[in-house]
Amino acid sequence: MDIKSIIRKKRNKEELTRDEIKYFVGKLGRGEITEAQAAAVISYIYTNGLTEDEILYLSIAMAESGDMIDLSDISDKIVDKHSTGGLGDKATILLMPILASLDIPVAKLSSRGYGITGGTIDKLESIPGFKTDFTMEEFRSKLRNVGVCLMNQGMNFAPVESKMYKLRNELACQDSLPIIAASLMSLKIATGSNKLVFDITCGKGTYITNLDQAKRLAKLLVKLGKRIDKEVVCVITNMNQPIGMSIGHNLEIKETIMALRGIIADDLANVVEVIGSIMIALATDNKNLVENSKTIKETIKSGKAFNKFKEMVAAQYGDTDYIDDPELFEKSKFIMPVLATEAGTVASIDSDIVGSIASYLGAGRMKEEGKINRTAGITLNKKVGDTVMVGETLAYIHTNDESKVNNTTQHLKDAFEITTKKLSDHNKILSIIEDVK
Amino acid sequence: MDIKSIIRKKRNKEELTRDEIKYFVGKLGRGEITEAQAAAVISYIYTNGLTEDEILYLSIAMAESGDMIDLSDISDKIVDKHSTGGLGDKATILLMPILASLDIPVAKLSSRGYGITGGTIDKLESIPGFKTDFTMEEFRSKLRNVGVCLMNQGMNFAPVESKMYKLRNELACQDSLPIIAASLMSLKIATGSNKLVFDITCGKGTYITNLDQAKRLAKLLVKLGKRIDKEVVCVITNMNQPIGMSIGHNLEIKETIMALRGIIADDLANVVEVIGSIMIALATDNKNLVENSKTIKETIKSGKAFNKFKEMVAAQYGDTDYIDDPELFEKSKFIMPVLATEAGTVASIDSDIVGSIASYLGAGRMKEEGKINRTAGITLNKKVGDTVMVGETLAYIHTNDESKVNNTTQHLKDAFEITTKKLSDHNKILSIIEDVK
Repeated sequence: MDIKSIIRKKRNKEELTRDEIKYFVGKLGRGEITEAQAAAVISYIYTNGLTEDEILYLSIAMAESGDMIDLSDISDKIVDKHSTGGLGDKATILLMPILASLDIPVAKLSSRGYGITGGTIDKLESIPGFKTDFTMEEFRSKLRNVGVCLMNQGMNFAPVESKMYKLRNELACQDSLPIIAASLMSLKIATGSNKLVFDITCGKGTYITNLDQAKRLAKLLVKLGKRIDKEVVCVITNMNQPIGMSIGHNLEIKETIMALRGIIADDLANVVEVIGSIMIALATDNKNLVENSKTIKETIKSGKAFNKFKEMVAAQYGDTDYIDDPELFEKSKFIMPVLATEAGTVASIDSDIVGSIASYLGAGRMKEEGKINRTAGITLNKKVGDTVMVGETLAYIHTNDESKVNNTTQHLKDAFEITTKKLSDHNKILSIIEDVK
Repeated sequence: MDIKSIIRKKRNKEELTRDEIKYFVGKLGRGEITEAQAAAVISYIYTNGLTEDEILYLSIAMAESGDMIDLSDISDKIVDKHSTGGLGDKATILLMPILASLDIPVAKLSSRGYGITGGTIDKLESIPGFKTDFTMEEFRSKLRNVGVCLMNQGMNFAPVESKMYKLRNELACQDSLPIIAASLMSLKIATGSNKLVFDITCGKGTYITNLDQAKRLAKLLVKLGKRIDKEVVCVITNMNQPIGMSIGHNLEIKETIMALRGIIADDLANVVEVIGSIMIALATDNKNLVENSKTIKETIKSGKAFNKFKEMVAAQYGDTDYIDDPELFEKSKFIMPVLATEAGTVASIDSDIVGSIASYLGAGRMKEEGKINRTAGITLNKKVGDTVMVGETLAYIHTNDESKVNNTTQHLKDAFEITTKKLSDHNKILSIIEDVK
C-alpha cells in the first residue's frame, strides 16, 4: 500500500478499502505524505465522490487521528448541535444556556472562526476575560457544575479533519459533500456525542448553495449516523439573509444578550426554537416539538436562560458586568446608515456580500492567524419581508475607519434585493430530515 | 484572477488563457500558492488534459520562470539531445564527444538523477575531480574552446519545471503527456536550443509505457516545435531491456570509455548512430543519415571521439588517468553471477526490476538528497536475442554488501524473460518522428 496507488485508485474512480483510508489519514496526520499528495486525493474525491462506506471509514479514521472523549458518565442526555456556518448565526450560543437552563447539559467543543462567518469562540471572547482553553478535567468539572461549557477543540480532536478543512479551502473543494459529511461526523465521533442535530445552512455565503445539495448532505449524515448508532437530525436553514440583526463580534454578543432578555429577531427565534425543540426531543421524553418550543420561550421569558448564560460566562472567567449592561461593549467610532434608494419589499440579503464587507471592515479572520476588530461589523435594519421606502435605513456600517464607509455603502446596498412583487414563503427552516427512533 | 478559479476551470475541463497559465506558473515559482493548490491543478490536468495552446503557454511560462540563455553567438550548429530517461543509457554521454569531434558543438545542461535511471551528471562525477558547477561565462568559454561542455542546470533554468517535476512524481502523474511535453519544451526554450532531438524512451522503467503514448508525445513535441520555430525530431526507443551492458555509475562510465574505444553493445551502438546521425543532419548540410552513421563509426574508430572525451574530461577537471585506464575505477567487493535455470532466447529484460534492484544495491538516488554508491550495480551478460543455456550467466550483481546478493539473485533472474519461440523484430529504435525542413 502506498499513497500513489491510493491517488491512482481515486483517480480511476475505484473504491478505497478501510485500510487504505486509514493509511491515508494516518500518513496525513503524521506528515508522512505531502500536502500535495493529500491535495490530489481530495481533488479526485471532489470529482469522483466517495461511497457511503468510504465516508464512514474516513470519518472514523479522522476521529481516531486525535483524542477521543466520552462524556457518558456525566449525562446520557448530552445533545450536540453543529452548524455548517451561517453569517450572523447566534443560535449555537443561545442554545447553550437555553438547554442548560432546562437541565440538558451542553458540552460544546468549537474552533476559532475562519472565513467570513466567525466562530463561536471568537464571538464569546468579546466578553472580557472569557476563556475557552481548558484541560479535559476542567471541562468536565464545569460541565458537571454549570451544565454547560464551551471549550476550544484546538488541535486535539480529529486533527486530520483540520488539515482536510484547510486543504478543502485552498483547493476550492469546500462544497464536497462526502468530505463535509466525513468532517462533521469525525468531530462528533471524537467528541463522543450520540445525539446530534446538524444545522445545514443553505444559500449565499455558505458551502452549500442549493437545497438539493443540502438534502443530500442531510440524508447522508442521517444514514451515517444509523451505521454508527448515533441519533441524527438535520435541519436545513435558509440563508436567504444573514441570521438576526447583526454581523460582527461585539455586535453579535450584544444581540445574543438581548435575545436572552426576550428581544429577538423573528428568523433567529425561528432557528433557536426549531433546533432547540429537536434537541429537547432527543435528550428527553418530551417528543412534542410544539410543546418543546413553548418550553424554550418560557425559559427565556422567565430569565432562567439569561441567568444560566451569566453563570456560564462567570464559570469561563468572563466579566458578567457586560452581560448585565451590554452598553459596556466598545462601539466603533463610526456607525453610518445605508439608505434605500428604491422602494419595495426586501426579497433577500446576500450573505456573501454582507460577509465580505464585514470582513473588509475587520470583523472576519481571513487567515488562520488573522486579527479581528471586535467593534466592526454591520447591523441590519431591514430584513426579508420588510417593506422599505426610499430614504429608509437598510443597515448600519460599524467601523473605526471612516474611509471604509464610502468603499462599502453602495456595495452593502446592492446586497439587498428589493422587489415590488409579493414575496412567496420565506421560512428560515426549509426542511427537517431525521431519524429519531 | 485567482488560483481557486484556475483550479475550478481545470476541474470543469475549461481551457485556461495564456494569462491564467502565466499567473499559475508565476505564483508557483514565487511560492505564492501552496503546493497543494499546484497539486490540484496538476491532478486535473492529468485527468482532463491540456490543449496544444495551453501546453505551449505552459512551456513558455515555465521557461520564463528562470534564466534564459542564448548561445547563438557561439555557433548556429548547436543541437540539443534530450532523453526522457532509459535505464543504463549512455547515449547522451557518448554523443557529446562524438559530435564535438566532428566540430558540432554540444552544450549540455543536465540535472542530477532522481529515481532509478541515474543522471548524466551523476554518472560523469564517477571520474574523480569531474565538475559541472560552472558560471555561465565558464560554460561559454569551455564550449568555445573544447566544443563540448556539461553544466549542472541547477535551479537556474525553468525552476518551476523542477517544482512541477517533483509534484508529478509525488502525485503519480509522471506519465501526463501534456506536462511532459511542456516540461521538455520549457527546458529547451530556457537553454536556447533551436535544433532538438528528443529520445522518447518507451517501455518498462520509463514514464511512457506504450508506443501509442510515445507517438502522441512525439507528435506533440514536433507540433510545439513548429509553433516556436524550433526544428524538432523525436526518436522513440524501445525499452524492452536496459541500454548497453551495465547499470550503475562506475560501471556505466567504464562502458562509455570502452564504447569510445570501439567496444560497444549493439543496442547502444544503434541508439548512438541513429540519434547522432539525426543530430548531424540538423546541424550541418549532411542530410544523409546513412552517411552520417558512417561518419560516427569513423570518428570512434579513428580515436577522435575518445580524444575529445579526454579533452572534455580534462576541461571539467576530471582525472584523465581513469579514461586511459578504466581499471582504476573502484569495483564492488562482491561481483556475483546470476545463472540461468531455463534455456531459450532472451525475449526481454524488465528495466523496472533491474532498475529497482540497482537502486536497492545503492546505485540509484531515491530522494533528492540521497547518496549513491558508485561501485554498485548490475552488468548484463545476456541481452535480448541472445540464446541462453541452463547454468549460463545472465548477469552479475555488484555490491559491497554480500547479504544483498541473496536478496536480489532470484529477482534479477525474474527480470529476464526467456522464450523458446522465435523472436520477432527487436529493434531498439521503434520510430522516428520528424519535422526537418
